[in-house]
Formats: sequence, C-alpha cells, structure tokens
Amino acid sequence: MAMAAPPSAYDRAITIFSPDGELYQVRYAFEAVRKGWTSLGVLTDSGVILAAEKRKITPLLDLNGIEKIYKVDDHIGVTFAGMGSDGRVLIDYARLVAVRHRLTYGEAPSTEYVVKSVADLKQLYTQHGGVRPFGVALVFGGVDSDGTPRLFRTEPGGQYFSYYAIAIGLGGDAANSYLEKNYKKDLSLDDAIKLAIIALFKGRVASSDEKKEDLANAFDEYVEVAYIDTKERTFNKVGRDVIKEIVKSSRGEMLSS
Amino acid sequence: MAMAAPPSAYDRAITIFSPDGELYQVRYAFEAVRKGWTSLGVLTDSGVILAAEKRKITPLLDLNGIEKIYKVDDHIGVTFAGMGSDGRVLIDYARLVAVRHRLTYGEAPSTEYVVKSVADLKQLYTQHGGVRPFGVALVFGGVDSDGTPRLFRTEPGGQYFSYYAIAIGLGGDAANSYLEKNYKKDLSLDDAIKLAIIALFKGRVASSDEKKEDLANAFDEYVEVAYIDTKERTFNKVGRDVIKEIVKSSRGEMLSS
Amino acid sequence: MAMAAPPSAYDRAITIFSPDGELYQVRYAFEAVRKGWTSLGVLTDSGVILAAEKRKITPLLDLNGIEKIYKVDDHIGVTFAGMGSDGRVLIDYARLVAVRHRLTYGEAPSTEYVVKSVADLKQLYTQHGGVRPFGVALVFGGVDSDGTPRLFRTEPGGQYFSYYAIAIGLGGDAANSYLEKNYKKDLSLDDAIKLAIIALFKGRVASSDEKKEDLANAFDEYVEVAYIDTKERTFNKVGRDVIKEIVKSSRGEMLSS
Amino acid sequence: MAMAAPPSAYDRAITIFSPDGELYQVRYAFEAVRKGWTSLGVLTDSGVILAAEKRKITPLLDLNGIEKIYKVDDHIGVTFAGMGSDGRVLIDYARLVAVRHRLTYGEAPSTEYVVKSVADLKQLYTQHGGVRPFGVALVFGGVDSDGTPRLFRTEPGGQYFSYYAIAIGLGGDAANSYLEKNYKKDLSLDDAIKLAIIALFKGRVASSDEKKEDLANAFDEYVEVAYIDTKERTFNKVGRDVIKEIVKSSRGEMLSS
Amino acid sequence: MAMAAPPSAYDRAITIFSPDGELYQVRYAFEAVRKGWTSLGVLTDSGVILAAEKRKITPLLDLNGIEKIYKVDDHIGVTFAGMGSDGRVLIDYARLVAVRHRLTYGEAPSTEYVVKSVADLKQLYTQHGGVRPFGVALVFGGVDSDGTPRLFRTEPGGQYFSYYAIAIGLGGDAANSYLEKNYKKDLSLDDAIKLAIIALFKGRVASSDEKKEDLANAFDEYVEVAYIDTKERTFNKVGRDVIKEIVKSSRGEMLSS
Amino acid sequence: MAMAAPPSAYDRAITIFSPDGELYQVRYAFEAVRKGWTSLGVLTDSGVILAAEKRKITPLLDLNGIEKIYKVDDHIGVTFAGMGSDGRVLIDYARLVAVRHRLTYGEAPSTEYVVKSVADLKQLYTQHGGVRPFGVALVFGGVDSDGTPRLFRTEPGGQYFSYYAIAIGLGGDAANSYLEKNYKKDLSLDDAIKLAIIALFKGRVASSDEKKEDLANAFDEYVEVAYIDTKERTFNKVGRDVIKEIVKSSRGEMLSS
Amino acid sequence: MAMAAPPSAYDRAITIFSPDGELYQVRYAFEAVRKGWTSLGVLTDSGVILAAEKRKITPLLDLNGIEKIYKVDDHIGVTFAGMGSDGRVLIDYARLVAVRHRLTYGEAPSTEYVVKSVADLKQLYTQHGGVRPFGVALVFGGVDSDGTPRLFRTEPGGQYFSYYAIAIGLGGDAANSYLEKNYKKDLSLDDAIKLAIIALFKGRVASSDEKKEDLANAFDEYVEVAYIDTKERTFNKVGRDVIKEIVKSSRGEMLSS
Repeated sequence: MAMAAPPSAYDRAITIFSPDGELYQVRYAFEAVRKGWTSLGVLTDSGVILAAEKRKITPLLDLNGIEKIYKVDDHIGVTFAGMGSDGRVLIDYARLVAVRHRLTYGEAPSTEYVVKSVADLKQLYTQHGGVRPFGVALVFGGVDSDGTPRLFRTEPGGQYFSYYAIAIGLGGDAANSYLEKNYKKDLSLDDAIKLAIIALFKGRVASSDEKKEDLANAFDEYVEVAYIDTKERTFNKVGRDVIKEIVKSSRGEMLSS
Repeated sequence: MAMAAPPSAYDRAITIFSPDGELYQVRYAFEAVRKGWTSLGVLTDSGVILAAEKRKITPLLDLNGIEKIYKVDDHIGVTFAGMGSDGRVLIDYARLVAVRHRLTYGEAPSTEYVVKSVADLKQLYTQHGGVRPFGVALVFGGVDSDGTPRLFRTEPGGQYFSYYAIAIGLGGDAANSYLEKNYKKDLSLDDAIKLAIIALFKGRVASSDEKKEDLANAFDEYVEVAYIDTKERTFNKVGRDVIKEIVKSSRGEMLSS
Repeated sequence: MAMAAPPSAYDRAITIFSPDGELYQVRYAFEAVRKGWTSLGVLTDSGVILAAEKRKITPLLDLNGIEKIYKVDDHIGVTFAGMGSDGRVLIDYARLVAVRHRLTYGEAPSTEYVVKSVADLKQLYTQHGGVRPFGVALVFGGVDSDGTPRLFRTEPGGQYFSYYAIAIGLGGDAANSYLEKNYKKDLSLDDAIKLAIIALFKGRVASSDEKKEDLANAFDEYVEVAYIDTKERTFNKVGRDVIKEIVKSSRGEMLSS
Repeated sequence: MAMAAPPSAYDRAITIFSPDGELYQVRYAFEAVRKGWTSLGVLTDSGVILAAEKRKITPLLDLNGIEKIYKVDDHIGVTFAGMGSDGRVLIDYARLVAVRHRLTYGEAPSTEYVVKSVADLKQLYTQHGGVRPFGVALVFGGVDSDGTPRLFRTEPGGQYFSYYAIAIGLGGDAANSYLEKNYKKDLSLDDAIKLAIIALFKGRVASSDEKKEDLANAFDEYVEVAYIDTKERTFNKVGRDVIKEIVKSSRGEMLSS
Repeated sequence: MAMAAPPSAYDRAITIFSPDGELYQVRYAFEAVRKGWTSLGVLTDSGVILAAEKRKITPLLDLNGIEKIYKVDDHIGVTFAGMGSDGRVLIDYARLVAVRHRLTYGEAPSTEYVVKSVADLKQLYTQHGGVRPFGVALVFGGVDSDGTPRLFRTEPGGQYFSYYAIAIGLGGDAANSYLEKNYKKDLSLDDAIKLAIIALFKGRVASSDEKKEDLANAFDEYVEVAYIDTKERTFNKVGRDVIKEIVKSSRGEMLSS
Repeated sequence: MAMAAPPSAYDRAITIFSPDGELYQVRYAFEAVRKGWTSLGVLTDSGVILAAEKRKITPLLDLNGIEKIYKVDDHIGVTFAGMGSDGRVLIDYARLVAVRHRLTYGEAPSTEYVVKSVADLKQLYTQHGGVRPFGVALVFGGVDSDGTPRLFRTEPGGQYFSYYAIAIGLGGDAANSYLEKNYKKDLSLDDAIKLAIIALFKGRVASSDEKKEDLANAFDEYVEVAYIDTKERTFNKVGRDVIKEIVKSSRGEMLSS
Repeated sequence: MAMAAPPSAYDRAITIFSPDGELYQVRYAFEAVRKGWTSLGVLTDSGVILAAEKRKITPLLDLNGIEKIYKVDDHIGVTFAGMGSDGRVLIDYARLVAVRHRLTYGEAPSTEYVVKSVADLKQLYTQHGGVRPFGVALVFGGVDSDGTPRLFRTEPGGQYFSYYAIAIGLGGDAANSYLEKNYKKDLSLDDAIKLAIIALFKGRVASSDEKKEDLANAFDEYVEVAYIDTKERTFNKVGRDVIKEIVKSSRGEMLSS
C-alpha cells in the first residue's frame, strides 16, 4: 500500500491502525511537540544538564513566574516541549511515582523507573478509546544511586530512548545539529551548561524572527538551566547571574553561524 | 502540511489532534472567551487589582445583582471572561480547593496552588471524550503569605501563565494595548485602580456601539473593581462611590484617543 | 468566520463548540423556550410578582387543573416557559435544594442560592455528552430574610441574571416592551399585579390569533398570578375573583395599543 | 427558521434539539400513539370513566384474554394507546409508585402524584442518550381522597395535562369530536359510560374499514369500560352484559352521523 | 408521511423512531421469526397443545438430539420460531422466573405471569441502546391453578396476546389458515393434537421444496408435540410412536389441498 | 425484500438486523470458520471421534507443538475451525464450566451442558454492542454418564445442533461429502478413526495446492485424532504411529476420487 | 465475495468482521510489526537463542541504554518487533504472570503457560470495542522444567505457534530465508548464536541503506543476544566482547550473498 494514500480515513481515533500499521493520532501529537518552546538535555561523565527557553509572547508576560524545568526527586529533573498543560499533568504523575517508590521500597527510584512509569501512562492513552494521546515530549535527566548519569526522552506514543544529548521543540533540529557537532562525553559540567545554552540559542535563532544580536543581549532572561552532578546527585537550578555570565562569554560562539 | 487546509475533519471532538498538532475544540473555546464581557488584572508592588465591566443588554436588567469578581479565599480573588455558567463552576471549584487546603494543611494555599488546580481540571476536559472544554478564561489575583502579589490567567486548554497585567474578553485587545503603554510595576494601588478602570473603558469603547461620552458619564455603573494589597493581604471590593470619583477624575484620559 | 456560515456541522452535540465559540444546542434549546406559554416576573420595593398565562389548546382541557406557578419554599416561587416536563424536573430539584438547605443549616436559603443550584444543574447538561440541555427557562422570585426582593431568570445554558422585570415565552417580546415602558420600582403590590396581567395580555395578543376583545372578556380564566411581599415574606397565589376584578378594571389599558 | 426545512439532520437522537427547538424523536413517538387502538377517559361530577376498544387482528385472537384498562390503586385506573409493551412497563411503574406511597406515608396517593411520577420517568427518557422515548400515551382516571375526580393524559415527552374528556389513538380525533359536542360535566355515571362507548364507536368507524352496522352488532365484544365513582372511590370494570345492553340501546345514536 | 418513503435513515438502531412512529429494528427482528422452523399452539377446553417441526438441513444432522419444545414449569411449556440461540436464552429466563416465583410465593406462577416477565425482558431490548431485539417469537401454553388453559405468543417487540390457536415461522401463514378453518374450542386433546400435526404439515408443504408424499411418509420424524391437559395440569411430550400413528391415520387430510 | 439488495448498510454492527432479518456480522464470522484448518467429528455406537488437520505454513513451524484437539473433561473433547485465539478462549471457558459443574454438583457434566454453556456465551456476543462474535466453530464430542455418545457443533451465532458426523473449515464441504457417503452408525471405533482420517484427507486435497501423492506420504504428520469410547468414557489421543499405520493402509482409498 | 473488494468499509474497528471473515485492524497491526527492528529466536537441542538488532536513528542515541531482549523468569526470555511501548506493556504482563504462577503454585511456569497468558490478553484486545490490538509480535524462548527448549511467536491477533526458528520485523523475510537454509536442530549453542547473528545481519542488509562492509565492521554494536541452555535453564545475555568475536569470525559468511 502506497504511503502516498490519504491517511484521512484512519486518523480520527487513537484506536485505529492505518493499513500501513501507523497510529496517525500519535503522529499528530508529535506535531504538538514540534511547536513547543525548545528544551534539551545533555549527559556527560560529570552529570546531566537540562535546559529550556521561554518566549515573551506578550509584553506584560512575567517570564520569572513561568517554570519549564522541574525537580521530580532529589536526583531527577525534567523538562518538556509541547502542550504545557499535558506536561504539567505528567510531571505531577512522575513526582507521585517517585514518592510512592520511596514509601514502598524505602529508597529513591532509578531514573529509568520513573521514565518507564510515565511512558506506560502515555502508552495507555494510545490504545484505549475516548481519549487523546498526551501532546508532549519530556526530557528526564537523573543520576542513579550508583552515580550513573541518565538522560531519556519520552514520546507521545509511550516509546522512550536514552540519549547522550537531545533537544525537542520548535528549535529542536537546529539545537540537535549544534549538539551533534560539539558534544563530547567528557565535558565538564560548566562546559556542558555552556553547550546547552548555546544549543538553545541556535535553536531559537532558527525558529524565530527576532534579531540575533538583540536576542544575544537578553538571552539570559529567556533561559532556564538545571543540573544534577554525579557526585552530589542533587537537582540544582543554575542562577540567573551565572547564566548571564555564560551568555556574555559565549557571545562570539552564539553569533557565529 | 499547510495551515490553510480545512480543519473541518478534525474539529468535532476534543480527543482528536489535527495533522498539524492542534486541538481545534480548544481553539473554538477560546472564541467563547473572546466574546465575553471584558475583565482584567493588574499587578503592582503594592498589590493586585481585578476589574470587570458589565453590560446592560436589556433595560430592566439589574446590574447590581450581577457579580463578575469573586473572592476565592481571604487573599485571592478571581474574575473571568466567556461563558458565565462555566466560570461559575470553576470558581466554585477554586473555592473548594482553597478550603480543602486550609483543612488539610492548616494554612492558606498559595495563589498558584489554586490556579494550578483549576487549570488541571480544565486540562482533564481537553483529553477525555464526551465532554467539551470550559469556554472561559479566568484571571486570578492574590497575595501569597510572604507578601508577593501574583497574577495569573488560565486558558480553556488548561495552560496558565503569570502576568504583570492582562485583559481578556470583547475589549481585551484594546485594554491590553492601553495597559502595555501605561503599566508600571511601582504604581500605587490607587493609580493601579485608575489604570484598570481606564483600560476597561478603552476596551468597552473599542467593542461596542455606545457613544463614548454617554458611556463615560455612566461608566461607574458598569464597572466592578477589587484589590488585594500586599500588606493587609485581604480581598476587598472597591465601593461604587470611589469608582464614581475615579471615573469623574479620569474623564479626560478616558475620552482621549 | 462569518456568522452566516452554516452551523450544521457543529450543532449536533452539546459537547462541540462551533468555530466561533458557540454551543448551538444551547441556542436551539432557547428556541423551545421561545415557543412556550408566556411567563413573567416583576420586582418592586414591596415584593415580587410572578404571572403566567395558560392556553386552551383543546376545548375539553381543564385549565384549572394546570399549574404554571409553583411555590419552591415559603418565600420563593417560580414560573417557567418552554418544555413543561423539563420545567417540572427543575422545579422539583429547586424544592429539594431548598429543603436540604433548611435541614443542613437550619434556616431558609436565599433566593440566589436556589437559583444558582438550578443553574449549576443546567450547566452540567451543557458540558457532558449523551444528554441534551434543559429546554426551559425559569423565572424565580423571592424575598430574602433581610426583606430584599429578588427576581432571576435561568437560561438553558446555565447562565442566570437578576432583573427588575422579565417576560419569557411566546409573548415575551411584546410583554417585555410593555414592562419597559411602564415599570417603576416603587409600584405598590396591587399596581405591580395589574402591570403583570396587562403585560401578559399584550404578549398573548401579539402571539395568538384570538380576537382581542373576546380574549379580554375571558382573560381571568387564562391567567395565574402569585406574589411574595417584602413584609410577610410568604408565597401567595392571587385568587381568581381578584384577577377577574383587575382584568375588568384594566380593560381599557389592555385594549389600547 | 422555516418549518419546511428537512428535519432529517436532527431527528436521529433524543439528545438533539432541532434549530427550531423541537425534539423530533418525541414527535415521532407521538405517531406511535396515533397508531394504537383508541382509548379515552371522561370526567363528570359523579366519577371518572375509562374506556378502550380492542381489535380482532386475526380470527383466533382471544380478545377476552387481552386487557386495555388496568387498576393502578383502589381509586385509580389507567388505559393507554400506542406501543403495548411500553404501556405495560409504565403501568407496572405506576402501581409500584402507588404501593410505595402507601408504604411510606400510610395513605393512598393522589391521582396526580402517580401521574407526575410516570411523567417524570417519561421525561428522563427524552433527555439522556442511548434510549428512545416511551411510544405510548396513558390516560389516568382517579378519585382523590377528598372525592374530587381527576383525569389526566401523559404524553411521550413527559408532559401531562388534566382534561374533562380525552381520547387517544387511531380513532382519537373522531372520538374527541363526539365528546366535545356531547360532553356535560354533570352527566350521571350511566350517561357518561354511554357517552364513552358511543365516542369509542365513532372513533372506530372513522379509523377502520369494517361495516358500521356489523360493527354495531358486535361492538360489546370489542369494548372494555371501567369507572371510579366519587362516592365509593373504587375502581370497577363494567360487565360485558351491561356493555351489551348499552350498545343495544345506543344503536340509533351510534349509527347516526 | 407516506409509507413508501425509504426507512433507511431510521432503521439502524433500536433507539430511533421513524417519522411514522415505527421501530424498524423490531420489524426486522420479526423477519427473523418468519424464517424460523414452524411452531404452533392450540388451546381447547381440554388443554393446550404445542407442536413444532424440525428440518433435516444436512443428511448427518441428528434430529433426535434437537429439541424445539421445552417444559418451563410443571404446568407450562413453550416453543419458538426464529433465532434458536435467542430462544434458548429466553426459555432459560422463563424457567428462572418460574422457579423464583415458587421460591418467593410458595406456589406455581400463572402462565401469564411467566409470559409477561419474558415479554418485559424483550421490551427492555427495544428501548435501550447498544443491543438488538430478540429475533424470536415464543408460544407459551399452560394450564393455570384454576384449570384454565392459556395460550400466548410473545413478539420481538415485547408485545404479547392470547390466542385460541397460533402458528409462527416459515409455514406460519399456511398453518394459521388451516387452523382458522378447522379450529373448534371443544376439540378433545387427541383431536387437537391431530389438528396441530396436520397444520404443521400444511405449513411445511407451503414453505419447502420437498415432495408432499415423501414428506407425509416420514413426517413423524420431523415433528415434536407436547400437551398440558386441564385435569393433570402437567406438561407431557407425545411419544414418537403416537405421532407416527396420527400421521399415518391423517394421511388423507394431509395430502388433500 | 430481495436477497440481492446490498447488505452494506446493515453489516457493520452486531446489534443491527438487516431488513430481511439477518445478522450479517454473524454471517461474516462464519466465513472466518470456513477459512480455518479442517476439523471434524464422527459419532458411532462405540464412541466419538474428533480429528483435525494442521498445515505447515512455514518450513520451520513446529507442528508437534501445535494442538488442535483438546480435552475438556475426562469424557469430553473438542476441536475447532476458525480463529485460533477465539477458539482457545472458548475452550478455556468450556473447561471452567466443566470444573464448576463438578465442584457444584459433585458429578461430571453432560456433554450438552458444556456445549450449551459455550453456545450461550457465543449468543451474548451477538446481541450486545461493542464486541464482535466469536469467529470460530467448535465440534464437541463426549460420552455421557449413561454411555450415550454425543456430537455437537456450535456456530458463531450461538446456535448448536447434534450430528452423526460433521466437518468444518477449509475442507469441510469435501470432508462432509465423503462422510455422508461412507458413514454408518455401527462402525467400530477403529473404522471410525479411519473414516475420519480419510475424510480429512479428502478435505485437504480439495482445499490445497499440494500434490495428492506427496500429501498421502506425509499425512500422518498433519493429522491429530482423539476418541472417547462408550465403555471407558475417557478422552484419548491416538498415537502418531497408529495414525501412520492407518494412513499407510488407507492409501488406496485416500487417492481414489 | 471477491478479495479485490475494497476493505475500507470494514477496517475501522476491531469489532467488525469483513464479508470475507477478516479482522482488518488485526492485519494492520501486523504491518506495525513488519516495520519494527528485526528480532529472532532459534531453538536447538542445546537451548534457545533470542537475538535482536538495534538501529542508531540519530547520532547521539545511546544504544547501550536500549534493551530489546528481556528476562521474563529465570528460564524464559522474550524479544519483540513492532511498537516498543506496546511490547513493554506485554512484557511487564508476562513477568507478572510468571511471578503470580510461582506465588500460587510454588513452582516456575512452563514457557507455554506464559505465552498463552500473553496471547489471551492480545485476543481480548481484538474482540471488545474501544481499544486497538497490540501492534507488536513477541518471540518467547524458554526451557521448561523437564529440560525441553520451547520457542513461540505471539501475533497481534492473539494467535501463537511454536517454531524451530523464527524472525520478525523489518528484516524478517531475509533472516527467515537464511534460517531456513542453515538451521539444524542439533546445532551447538555457540553455532546457534552464530547463526542468529548472521541471520540478523542478512535481515539488516536487506532492509537498510547502510553499506554492507561498514555495517559488518560495527555490527557488534547493534546486536543483542541471549540464550537459555537446556542444562542450566537460566536466561543469560551474551557479552559484547563475545558478540564482537563472533561478528569478526563470521565476516566472510555475513558478506557472502
């Protein structure tokens, strides 16, 4: 059966396979992810970085009041791209999963345990009628109890994979290109944070009409960064002043093409 | 896929994504918001202002008997635009959330806690079949226990953001324009109330056929204003006589274009 | 999007918004209200009047056995226009709400408490699938414990407003016109009853083929009137002989155009 | 909106209003009533009469084994036209309502109490999806504890009215015409029974191909009559021999046109 | 509305009335009855006869292993035409109803009590969505505790009537014609059994391609007969040898046309 | 109504009768039976034989690991044709029914008791929406406690009949033809097994492209046979070597046409 | 009915059979299997091998963090092809089944017990509405308590068969061809592992654009292998270095065509 055939007859419900074995509603949910503000994760030997951009869609929007990176447990963080309200629901669920694990087993869950639980919930929403899939992808970063850093992306269909670095959302393609060219597994945490910020900037430039130079001047305002290092194994947000410093020192690299 | 493609095949149910990752029923619910009477919120260092207009759709309507701004908890208020009956249901829910928090934790909830709870309920109505989204946007204002003023808008899709000032409904665009030009974060409460009333007036003029001057004469009758200041942290309605005074003293500014 | 566009694709279910943010099933339910026998309410400083007409659709119909105005609680009454069986269900619900309030709080509910409860039930029937909205509007009149008279209309969509006077049903437009011209807030109860009866008559004439003079002769047979005055705070039906007297003395005003 | 517009888009489900505010499924259920064997009720100062015809649709049908008038309580009877199995279900329900009232309150229910309960059940079947309305109208007759005779008809939509006399079913129009011409409220019970039988006959003649004279000869076989008089307040069936006598003595009136 | 109009829009669900007040799915279920093997019942002063034919649709079918007449209680039997699996379910239900009655009231149920219970279940399957009507008609015969013989047919729509004699299924029309010509209420049981067998034969001849004479030779193999007489009030099957004798002695009448 | 009319409008749901009283989904489920590997049963005075073929659809398929005949209880066996997973579910159900009977009544169930229970479950799946019928026919063989051998086939619609011999599936028609020509009720068990194997072979030849002679050489590999004899009343599988012997000695009969 | 007829009318729901007795949604789910990464199983006298390939769809994907072969119980393993999230859900279910068996019966389940349980769950998702079938096939390998090695494949429709060797997914056809040519039941475990790896390689080459030689160089990175031998009866993963060695030593065979 030709892929060119119009999928229209098979894309109205999550419970219908198309003749070529596709779930179109899951594909469409991925489009919602592609329209979200860019988020990314970077894994190095020293820890995991999560970073996300925010956009000032209206002048009196209070960007400080908007969070894109959340702590799930002491040693696990998460960011997302896509429908924000769906993301919120899944992040609440992830926290619940983590707390329950601690209560039941008396110890912190592994990063993959939490990721798998969230992905299983997503799967449920692709097989039973009367619902739609979650229109959001999440990037989880964590450091497990043995000190191993982990980085995962969950997809709207419930699939998840582990990555060395991965960006999602509006500027995902451009950010991923930058990451693929510059990523090294032995980056220091500081260098990884710098890499993340520049990748975000590349993604922003590629997916917005803003003037590159103006954007570079104010980019600290639009960026949120967090890390879990392999020693402390604790989720930390990077301070605004630190980000400002990095943005300033990376200006050359940011503006180069 | 071109945005020009007719969405008609994908806009009949909340559980269907369109090929470009949109939930059209959520978009359409936003249209119901755009047709509602104008409401707005303004946040300053001294507190939060909520203001709303009312319209005399029939001569024997009793405007005094109609409320557009509600107290949610001692330190939180809310107003809305869109379908009034939907708004009522969500405001009742918000109050329930606040009371439950007090009963469970022995202390008042933060403004965002209440906002997030309402937004989560809204999200639920965008993912499960057999219902429609809430056709209403709410503007919550509150002062948290640490004295921080907060201002949020929840959207029909369950998304919420924080703002310095935000207007919604029929006159939302015009009111927002005025707010963007005149807003300052360090306005006194009195000045913020004045700003809110004039912004409402600008919105009304832009979205009604009434004569500007006549409207200015009677505008106190159509306006409801409330505030929570950062010191008292208590929701208060502004009296009709005070509003009358402000309307009178602002006549010049109101009628200027 | 033009309002002229055919709504046909969006008007089959209560759970579907049209592209311009309308719920067409709620609109259509309003049409059922517009086809019902006329009912109205009038609020004055001395109390609230409810009045309703009945029509002899077949010669052996027993009009005395048909009630259009009901007592909800000692101090609250209600009338309706639209689908009678839907009205009956909601009025039973209103009574239940009132009784429950008395049992729970040991005191009579306010008029608005009862009205809001009924309106909330109506809202529920506009947001969840598998049902239709209630095809009826209700006019509630009551005098609260502080002696304040209240008059409300609930709409099929769950919205409610307070009025000085409001007529609904087949002759609603004509009756409202008459009320708007002749209403005064300080009318005595007797004058308000007279006003209500004449307004009903005007509505009947405008929406029926009966001969005006014949109708005037027998109009007491077709009219039901009740009042709650602000002193006694008790629902009372007006006797048939009193109505006969008023109809007779108002003949001139009734027949004038 | 013109009534000429095809209703086809709005007549497939009980939960859909048409643009002019109609519930077409309720209308169609009324057609089922119009196709049923004729039944009627007559109310006089001396009591209430219920009467119904039966038709020998096949030669070996045992008409004696078929009942069209049922006792609901000592003082209440009922007959119906339309779908017999639906009627049976509602009559069982009516009896249950009456028994429950006696058990709960220790006294017999009023006629209207029972009628309203049945009508409320009918209403339920016009507002919630996944069912169809009851395709049957019922005529209830009863004498309340204060000796007042009552006569009601419930419609498929759940509406009910009180009547002096009312006929339903195939011959309903012709029977009603006869009743309207000959009804008097002060008829003796015997005269009312005679009136009922002749009206049934008129209805039968108008809606069947049978020869008038043959029908008159055997009409006692096709007729069932019951009464509740205001003194005894007890449901009684009229004996076959009494009916035979009345049919014989009324032959002239029956055959006149 | 013309009966010629295509019913197609209204015949897909049991919950939809057609514009002329028909339930087409019930009609279609009747067609399933008309395609079933013929069954019949005959009521006389001496008792009730049930009879049914079986057809050898394939040579190695074991007709002795197939039952078409069932005992419901000591004094009640039943046969059916239409979908056999539906019939089985309803007959199980009838037995349950009878047993429950004995357990609850300590006495055997009347025939009509059982019939009405089964018919009520059938009605349920014509009013609520998500099911189809039962595609089967049942003929119940019984002798009540006062010695009265009863014969009933229940239809797919839940309607039931009492008969002196009634045949259903493929050969129903021809069998009914024969019964109408030859039935007498005072037949002895033996004569009634003979009547039943010949009627069955007439029905078979009219609805099959088999050669009349061959059929007559082996007809005892295809026939099942049972009776409940008014004295013993006990369900009995007629033995194969008795049937053989009757078939032999009735050959002349069977082959006459 | 002509059978030639397109059934398309009535064949999408199990809950819809066609105008001629058919359930098309049940018919289509029968097609699934007709596409299954052939199975058959043979009943003689000495016992019951069940036999089934298997096909090597891919070279590395392990035919020994595939079972087509199952023991239900000591004295009852079953085989099937159609959708294997549906068959598995029903066979598990049959076993459950048998065990429950033993636990409840302390004795083994009759063959028909088990068959009827399975057929009732199948019926349920033809009357209630949201499911499809079972796409499988089962052939049950058993010897009851009185030594009577029984053979039944249950159909997708829930109907069941008893047979002397019956084949189903791809080669059903050819196998049935052979059985009809050669079946005798007094065959010894050994001869019945031989008859079953040759009938299976005839069915295979008629429904496959394999070369007759090659097939005959290896046919023991593709055949499974079981029997319950009337004396032992115990389900036994026939060993591969015995089958081999029979296949060898029957070669002439198998290859004759 | 011709197979050429468009299936479109019957392929939208799992609860609809097509006229030729097919469940198209199950067929389409099989297409999802055909698009998955290749997996396979090989059964020999010495044990069972499971092998699966992984593909580097994006450069920063961490293949080490991705598992395609899972332990179900000590003596049972599983791999899959198709939708990964569906596979995950079924493998969790398989583990649950195994643990429950151990808890209930105090001993390890047989391989087929686990396989049948998973297949039964799959069947459930093909017969009840509102869900879709699982879009995944699983290959289970195990060694039962008597030392017998077992290899099964479960299909999306709930059917399962046992195999000597079976490959599924993108390269399934090519891998199966290689297996059919080279499989011997008496292979040593080491030779079977080698066979599995080469078969996977053949499948990869046939279904990807990668250069054969490059692929051969790095193939150990893309391969996962596990085995359960008949003596230890324990699931073991084959180490990366061992695989590397085999890939190196098999280069000639891998690159030959």
